[in-house]
Amino acid sequence: MTSTQPRRGGQVHLNAFLKPPGEFLAAWRHPHAVADAGVNIRHVIELARTAERGTFDAIFLADLVGVPLTSQEVLSRVSVVNDSFEPTTLLAALATATTRIGLVATASTTYNEPYHLARIFASLDHLSGGRAGWNLVTSLNDAEARNFGLDSHVEHELRYARAAEFHDVVTGLWDSFDDDAFRHDQASGVYFDADKVHWLNHAGTHFRVSGPLNIARPPQGRPVVVQAGASETGRDLAARVGEVIFTAHPTLPAAQAYYADIKARAATAGRDPDHVIVLPALSTIVGRTQAEAEDKIAALRSLLDPRVALADLTYRLGGFDLTRFPLDGPLPELPPSNQSLSGQRQILDQARADNLTIRQLADQIARDDRTLVGTPTTVADHIQEWFEQRAADGFNVIFPYLPDALNDFVDLVIPELRRRGLFRTAYTGRTLREHLGLPRPPSRYASRSGAPT
Amino acid sequence: MTSTQPRRGGQVHLNAFLKPPGEFLAAWRHPHAVADAGVNIRHVIELARTAERGTFDAIFLADLVGVPLTSQEVLSRVSVVNDSFEPTTLLAALATATTRIGLVATASTTYNEPYHLARIFASLDHLSGGRAGWNLVTSLNDAEARNFGLDSHVEHELRYARAAEFHDVVTGLWDSFDDDAFRHDQASGVYFDADKVHWLNHAGTHFRVSGPLNIARPPQGRPVVVQAGASETGRDLAARVGEVIFTAHPTLPAAQAYYADIKARAATAGRDPDHVIVLPALSTIVGRTQAEAEDKIAALRSLLDPRVALADLTYRLGGFDLTRFPLDGPLPELPPSNQSLSGQRQILDQARADNLTIRQLADQIARDDRTLVGTPTTVADHIQEWFEQRAADGFNVIFPYLPDALNDFVDLVIPELRRRGLFRTAYTGRTLREHLGLPRPPSRYASRSGAPT
Repeated sequence: MTSTQPRRGGQVHLNAFLKPPGEFLAAWRHPHAVADAGVNIRHVIELARTAERGTFDAIFLADLVGVPLTSQEVLSRVSVVNDSFEPTTLLAALATATTRIGLVATASTTYNEPYHLARIFASLDHLSGGRAGWNLVTSLNDAEARNFGLDSHVEHELRYARAAEFHDVVTGLWDSFDDDAFRHDQASGVYFDADKVHWLNHAGTHFRVSGPLNIARPPQGRPVVVQAGASETGRDLAARVGEVIFTAHPTLPAAQAYYADIKARAATAGRDPDHVIVLPALSTIVGRTQAEAEDKIAALRSLLDPRVALADLTYRLGGFDLTRFPLDGPLPELPPSNQSLSGQRQILDQARADNLTIRQLADQIARDDRTLVGTPTTVADHIQEWFEQRAADGFNVIFPYLPDALNDFVDLVIPELRRRGLFRTAYTGRTLREHLGLPRPPSRYASRSGAPT
Repeated sequence: MTSTQPRRGGQVHLNAFLKPPGEFLAAWRHPHAVADAGVNIRHVIELARTAERGTFDAIFLADLVGVPLTSQEVLSRVSVVNDSFEPTTLLAALATATTRIGLVATASTTYNEPYHLARIFASLDHLSGGRAGWNLVTSLNDAEARNFGLDSHVEHELRYARAAEFHDVVTGLWDSFDDDAFRHDQASGVYFDADKVHWLNHAGTHFRVSGPLNIARPPQGRPVVVQAGASETGRDLAARVGEVIFTAHPTLPAAQAYYADIKARAATAGRDPDHVIVLPALSTIVGRTQAEAEDKIAALRSLLDPRVALADLTYRLGGFDLTRFPLDGPLPELPPSNQSLSGQRQILDQARADNLTIRQLADQIARDDRTLVGTPTTVADHIQEWFEQRAADGFNVIFPYLPDALNDFVDLVIPELRRRGLFRTAYTGRTLREHLGLPRPPSRYASRSGAPT
């Protein structure tokens, strides 16, 4: 059983959630925004180096494999996800432009082949000297499905079943060669030991994959697996395979309940709960004074077009067309959907709890009222409280607008966290696993021979 | 009709075919080889920078999505393809470590989804400022098929039909946004012009893809498409979609015949033959004197294990087990195969023409007798003759061992080519298209509106 006593000592883990020009829908209209931020490699390298200067554990890249279907007119007013680098190629480029920070990319198990993903993340781990992480997702919406021969998103339970098998195949492929397989013995002519390569010969419900992978075992053994399961099925997957859990909760008690639940599920699955690192999202805007911080967010919010807010709510609710209902009436019951169940549930709860009209809800979500607006002290207080009260092992820090919110976090909040002994002052490890205090996983073949069958 | 008169003036194009530790099967045993060359990013960056110093048009990366199935014992003596970076992530890493050289990666249309590949190559083109190229292949062998749920490689005609449709989808996705779609107009709040985004809505035999791609049109409009079709079907595809054609011929007349044929097919397909650049493979080992060059290849050949030579022949013949036949007898008739038809045909022709036994054939292929061993003058003579006699627009330069053969080519051959006015002395362009003299393709929507249907 995991302790529920307040935690003393220890340090938080922080991921930098980089989505230039920022998470806020109108971030690109900010005067300091870089116009083509999503595809400007010089800009993104600068952001990555700032995050590395702040000794973040990792850069975290979200992803969609499509453009959310909404009205073309409204879509044209939003930068997010419509023009950005593909995450694995971007992280590979950042691997040679940084030296220590971890590199986590999102990739979907629903619309990929495990052999390709295993290979890409193994390659990224080798390129970066052991800094790769894979955020395993099952994708979100119908717009993605329609780029892969389907009419609508794969059904929720089916895609989680596929995800579990996908993970099993990928980790098996990463173990294709034993850690000490490659001898490079020029004198004897033995490149690798013949008994240290393993054919996976996987034949399951969703995949048949022979292997072996055509690359040495990754420096980390396996890249770090990140997961964000929130539904029942999602939590079970997260607890079984996730090493870092990305989550989001509006209140301390909700976060504590999730934290305890995931750690308990991990223990039930036979894992060490300390090796399942729970990182809630934390969106912040920081000022030297509270007034300065408030001014910053007010300036940002003034840039938001109400049409964009409503379109964003439509998208978050699975494309359900809200324009058929009175804007100043309540949110109607929604039809069943295959999209992210937990995300929709949170929005519905928010609307019902505060009796919001559609217009109010759209405005509240788009205004991003959950963003913590404060001074270095108040933000550090929040981080410390959630950490000590076992609501978090650290945070996925979300930047409403870039580069300013990242610069402010690194220059104002991180020094305060360091002063309190809550965060590293320099990297002590070389790999992402070392930053996170996660052990290097043994190969599944650690005590077997690997003759092909 | 393309001229058959000897060519005067003009310059050759050169790709550096990088496959560390080199193309020769025993290259990894050379004293200057880097032990873990396939996954050593510092080493590969050094190779890339050497190629850039030599003002090569591009780095060219071959690929297989699997480990060729052969005996485990023999496999363990070969470095090639068993331990190397995945090409697109490697090129993304090289994009930030180089400034001008083109970056061409091989990717299979048989075992990929067009949305992913379109996105990865668009991303690579943005990352590199317009230096990306895609070598479109249909994959080679059963070992690859078995990593994607199949028992054997997809039938030849079917995979070429799929490849043609795949290419059509990918180029359509690259055109999702018009070149001038993104306005980033902070004042009006218009991120892109609503009428300048295009849903592909492709519904074909092999793919249904909605689009749009979630990234701006690549800097080159479309990354350069490289193709290596050699069979009848392959040549037709190459002539229809290839902008650079990678090929291989043992003699000048054979190369001239292929060159004329591809240019004629391109013209028949309505294309400008000058925009189809034919680059035969050229494997070279260069010495300051002929004797020095001969010594180098003799030293390299002495490292070859005969078991490896036989296994390599087996692999090249589609996995057909030759150990059942007398080693000193003739090559038997081979069963039909779905693998690379042209490669097998060339090997059979070679065996029949010289009346070779299995042992002799294996030795000859593994010894790589087609490697041009000479001085800077003789190698430059060969390049000049093939160029002037319309057998080539340049070459894919293959390095039997790395880094030496690349260093020698850059330090010895390229100065000689420059002295003759046959090769650039510095990059004049910024993009791969500019290096190759290829026009920037217009969008397929250049004169249409893009309302979703």
